[in-house]
Amino acid sequence: MKLRILLSLMLMLFSASVATAASLPDEDGYDLWLRYRPVEAAYARNLNVSAILGGDTPLQRSAESELQRGLKGLLGRDAARVKTVQAGALILGTPASSGLIKNLKLPLQGLGEEGFLIRSISLNSKPVTVIAANSDRGVLYGAFRYLSLIQTRQPLGHLNISDAPKTDLRLLNHWDNLDGSVERGYAGASIFDWWRLPDLKDPRLTDYARANASIGINGAVIDNVNASPLVLSDRYIAKAAAIADMLRPWGMKVYLSVNFASPKALGGLPTADPLDPQVIKWWQERTDAIYKAIPDFGGFLVKASSEGQPGPGDFGRTHAQGANMLARALKPHGGVVMWRAFVYASDNPEDRFKQAYDEFKPLDGQFDDNVIIQIKNGPIDFQPREPFSPLFGALTETNEMMEVEITKEYLGQATHLVYLAPMWREALQSDTYQQGPGTTVAKVLEGKVYGNRLTAMAGVSNIGADRDWTGTDFNQANWYAYGRLAWNPDADPKAIASDWTKMTFSDNPAFVTPVVNMMMGSHEAVVDYMTPLGLAHQMATGHHYGPGPWVCDLARPEWNPCYYAKADKGGIGFDRTATGSDALAQYAPEAAAKWSDPKTMDPRFLLWFHHVPWDFVSADEKPLWPDLIAHYDVGVDYVHDMQTTWADMKPYVDDRRFTAVSENLAIQAREAKWWRDAMIAYFQSKNGLSLPTGEAPPEHDLGYYESLQFPNAPGQGK
Amino acid sequence: MKLRILLSLMLMLFSASVATAASLPDEDGYDLWLRYRPVEAAYARNLNVSAILGGDTPLQRSAESELQRGLKGLLGRDAARVKTVQAGALILGTPASSGLIKNLKLPLQGLGEEGFLIRSISLNSKPVTVIAANSDRGVLYGAFRYLSLIQTRQPLGHLNISDAPKTDLRLLNHWDNLDGSVERGYAGASIFDWWRLPDLKDPRLTDYARANASIGINGAVIDNVNASPLVLSDRYIAKAAAIADMLRPWGMKVYLSVNFASPKALGGLPTADPLDPQVIKWWQERTDAIYKAIPDFGGFLVKASSEGQPGPGDFGRTHAQGANMLARALKPHGGVVMWRAFVYASDNPEDRFKQAYDEFKPLDGQFDDNVIIQIKNGPIDFQPREPFSPLFGALTETNEMMEVEITKEYLGQATHLVYLAPMWREALQSDTYQQGPGTTVAKVLEGKVYGNRLTAMAGVSNIGADRDWTGTDFNQANWYAYGRLAWNPDADPKAIASDWTKMTFSDNPAFVTPVVNMMMGSHEAVVDYMTPLGLAHQMATGHHYGPGPWVCDLARPEWNPCYYAKADKGGIGFDRTATGSDALAQYAPEAAAKWSDPKTMDPRFLLWFHHVPWDFVSADEKPLWPDLIAHYDVGVDYVHDMQTTWADMKPYVDDRRFTAVSENLAIQAREAKWWRDAMIAYFQSKNGLSLPTGEAPPEHDLGYYESLQFPNAPGQGK
Repeated sequence: MKLRILLSLMLMLFSASVATAASLPDEDGYDLWLRYRPVEAAYARNLNVSAILGGDTPLQRSAESELQRGLKGLLGRDAARVKTVQAGALILGTPASSGLIKNLKLPLQGLGEEGFLIRSISLNSKPVTVIAANSDRGVLYGAFRYLSLIQTRQPLGHLNISDAPKTDLRLLNHWDNLDGSVERGYAGASIFDWWRLPDLKDPRLTDYARANASIGINGAVIDNVNASPLVLSDRYIAKAAAIADMLRPWGMKVYLSVNFASPKALGGLPTADPLDPQVIKWWQERTDAIYKAIPDFGGFLVKASSEGQPGPGDFGRTHAQGANMLARALKPHGGVVMWRAFVYASDNPEDRFKQAYDEFKPLDGQFDDNVIIQIKNGPIDFQPREPFSPLFGALTETNEMMEVEITKEYLGQATHLVYLAPMWREALQSDTYQQGPGTTVAKVLEGKVYGNRLTAMAGVSNIGADRDWTGTDFNQANWYAYGRLAWNPDADPKAIASDWTKMTFSDNPAFVTPVVNMMMGSHEAVVDYMTPLGLAHQMATGHHYGPGPWVCDLARPEWNPCYYAKADKGGIGFDRTATGSDALAQYAPEAAAKWSDPKTMDPRFLLWFHHVPWDFVSADEKPLWPDLIAHYDVGVDYVHDMQTTWADMKPYVDDRRFTAVSENLAIQAREAKWWRDAMIAYFQSKNGLSLPTGEAPPEHDLGYYESLQFPNAPGQGK
Repeated sequence: MKLRILLSLMLMLFSASVATAASLPDEDGYDLWLRYRPVEAAYARNLNVSAILGGDTPLQRSAESELQRGLKGLLGRDAARVKTVQAGALILGTPASSGLIKNLKLPLQGLGEEGFLIRSISLNSKPVTVIAANSDRGVLYGAFRYLSLIQTRQPLGHLNISDAPKTDLRLLNHWDNLDGSVERGYAGASIFDWWRLPDLKDPRLTDYARANASIGINGAVIDNVNASPLVLSDRYIAKAAAIADMLRPWGMKVYLSVNFASPKALGGLPTADPLDPQVIKWWQERTDAIYKAIPDFGGFLVKASSEGQPGPGDFGRTHAQGANMLARALKPHGGVVMWRAFVYASDNPEDRFKQAYDEFKPLDGQFDDNVIIQIKNGPIDFQPREPFSPLFGALTETNEMMEVEITKEYLGQATHLVYLAPMWREALQSDTYQQGPGTTVAKVLEGKVYGNRLTAMAGVSNIGADRDWTGTDFNQANWYAYGRLAWNPDADPKAIASDWTKMTFSDNPAFVTPVVNMMMGSHEAVVDYMTPLGLAHQMATGHHYGPGPWVCDLARPEWNPCYYAKADKGGIGFDRTATGSDALAQYAPEAAAKWSDPKTMDPRFLLWFHHVPWDFVSADEKPLWPDLIAHYDVGVDYVHDMQTTWADMKPYVDDRRFTAVSENLAIQAREAKWWRDAMIAYFQSKNGLSLPTGEAPPEHDLGYYESLQFPNAPGQGK
């Protein structure tokens, strides 16, 4: 025992000396933000924590094991499991699991099912820390919060923290196919080894669940929204159950994306009409079979009547009829249906921007109370910048949730360093004005406006089997920030970035400050070098890698980048005012008013709503054409600045991660310039204008950019 | 400095105590057989090694870094780099790089370019160990051999080892597609991140190259034989060059599979006729471009006129004309063409067994001297058991090499524990009799029979991006054993298994002996439960997962399992005697004679060559029908025995690897029974015979087995 203490001390000394040495030990990113590397001795000295007194439920056991792992790593201490109060103990529990906690009469009301309280108190004159909650899951979240306080070097002497999530369901959506590929995945194959499940239980899934629990994510949809009917077969239900078994100890539920045509495709029925009694029975039977294997199954996610997927529309039924049929199969078990609003019809000539609202607004009030409409943050499709979807706040009698895309399908994919939290905050804090000023999207989602029975967030996962989970170290920040914002849609992206940076790399301010600043501007940079001033969907077809503004010959108009930019000799931009598609009218009048005057509106959204001439000049006297080019330049320059910033960070990062980030930034720098040059060459081909004085011309002619082909671009699934 | 020594000592003590404790630290398999975990103190005490005196070339630097890594891990010692001889030094070098080595006048003749010598000598009364070779690559191989001696706990006091490979080119063939999928890959995506290359240099490739160097593999064909023309584009050549840059310091060359139609598909020429001057020029230009990027590029691998791939036959040219055209483009640069003999024509009614021989035997002598014909070990396609290909030894004026499949496409894929070295040895030690008795396949391949200019082995890789590289820990043994057998085709599979087991898990005899025995019988077991007595190709269509003997309706006869077993009311087996296809006549008469009499021949090959009635009885009075069933039972029982054996190994293996192997064995046990039951049900449907007394009937009826579908089975590539 003495030997082990000595060894621990020496390991800490060794670690401390390494931390200041020229070269830090290489890390491969697998540990994410749960690295638990040793803290500085000065900080550790003040921490009085030496034992854990916890409950015996599975989730409290998880909390305890994580605390032991974390304290061992951070402080080099083995926190013993104790049965009685002692000085320096961490006391975990719920009033139900612990008489001690119950007797403390802590203010747990208001923390709901998942909130927690962390408090430094004195018990029988012994200083202890209490992590208490109304449920085991709350205890688990409290344990992770406690560790994060050490990871970010907070003072722990007089803790009095209480926190609770503002949404009920905080989910990852995996667009993972049953063949192991991942649609819009840029970090290797699926982490779910569908083939060898349920027999082979990959320990990686436990680490996946731990990471999610640490940021409050409490569920995962484990298969692609473009769903295979097979996932409802007994064989695949058994596989899903094995995944559920591995996620459950960390407070996560499993959900499945289902194919609306499954009763035909898998069940052999002649129809999938949601009002057909046989179809209803089939779904009930399959749902019951799932709950038999997964008693805490979360529910279904459905992409119906969208992009070729089957749906109730195929049988002349409404989305509400389709969703409610599934909801009623799930209802007895407590499950939910998340029904995606991402629809646009192949035969509908209406502005794609408007179609989701047109479809769902008339159905408001017709959905059962265990249905949630899952709405993408913007009206089109995860563009670098979109206005908020007009559906937010417009549905007053229907549960609604937001879907964001953590995987950067349209924002540089795996390689570009883009911190997404500022973009998500922009959507969350948008004012819908639907119930007067201050009716922000976040408030709607939190259920504060209409008192929704269910509140939720969904993030399309950027996770794959790559050793670092997300393709690059900085993509991990988006997984992390998504969890934090799902927990609290009002959280500050900068504070989140700061926490993540400290936990993932270093808490040295000489590192944290410049890196956080670099992250915070990275989203505006990608907007600038891809689609500034309210442009959207200028990416190449199919894989969405690189620029493709010239594409104009695809079967459906709204598949073409030219549909969105509408660049011609006369001008650029999509007229969504009353003279155009009038999509603006889908917003509350006060919200629409903000975007109605091209002269005075926020120019970041200009071309989303207005077609303006190339010689347009805004009220603050910015002429469009040079301003557009200036944005591209600013974006390109920002990437160069990130390279410079990162180069200075070498002393604070291990070689392996330092090099990987540097290599990815080099790709981003080259591609930012590619974007700038290709877009400018394209615009010039339309407007015939020369470049402002001093502007570098595109490196190649337009034909060159048009000729580039990327047949093996990743993320296209099967 | 003192602190570090103390720390090292303590770490060793700690490790030693762990090694005897109940629970070993978990390992994820990434380190392969190069784990370098601490040796026992008693063994370490006797090792006098403390410094390295090496040369300054890239490969000698690699050797030195590996020795430092290995000695640090194994002995806890930092072997300092020194400039002068000191006691306990490892002295590395070649006569060219080191005056010291040159002056020692060691017997390096006969070691060729890649052999090495390891010797304990005394220099100025100082005991040192010399690792010497004629080339830097030999030094590198010697360094790995030296480390393996410690890993397997050999005495190091009086070393006098010299070794040299018996083949020139020892290659892995990666069937990796440019989209990241792997044809017949069961261990995740490709380790080559084609998308982010050449910018992103994954450190994993260095570990891949180290592992290969440790077993003497000196090259890799990095793309699928079903090759994309794109690989010859400038963009992909740059990617291949980046891979080559990472493999070169470890003595590995890069090769490319090329598509014969590339001049049309990529070059835009009207033809790919190998005699067309423009085509010739196109290949020369592309080859020159490759060598500009990769000065030590190895050459091309070609699958031509086979399974739908284009080839010289499309233009009325012979394989020799096609191969020589490419060979002449490579010749000035020192590159080679590996031309696969795996051909069978869609319009050829001849027994598929015979077609490769029929095509290539008449071309003997027509191939340039930098062409090698790459021949699969058997005449069909990597079955659990095949007779050797009749081409071996039959080509007397042509370089020939063997291709084996390390990835277990037909032998249980990722999950089944099957050690392949005994199967490869069976092929290698087969006597072709082509130049009299003793003309073994191995001798032919080693160039000892016909004095080939080039000798080589190719192994189809089982490597993917899974953390453990090969899908399970035991699949690593096949990668390892392939390298050892490519180096020395006469090596003993059991000795190889023993070395691998010690290095990968534990050198405890209580572990090594039962595990090696288990491995040694595992190949016969898979033959028994899949295709005993000379059956072949009974696997399900496309994915080759599980049994499919009933499949008989595919377009080409030789795609159907029923083509191979020819089971009917009257009997079973493929008549390849003079009354049948007469494939036997392709062998030398003495070899054919061994297989000509069904009564007396080795029954393991019976149904490869004879169609016999169900009531057939061999000379040793074994009746076919009960014997066939008995083989299935033996195979199934063997897997249960492996489960029992492995369960006893728990004290010697960490939990993580122990559990993974256990879980895979459980899958194998279930699937072995599935094979037995499905095959017996199928045979009974043909012969109408009842089961011998006491035999368990199949669990389900034949219809059940026929109904099973596996649409997401892995390994089917794009």
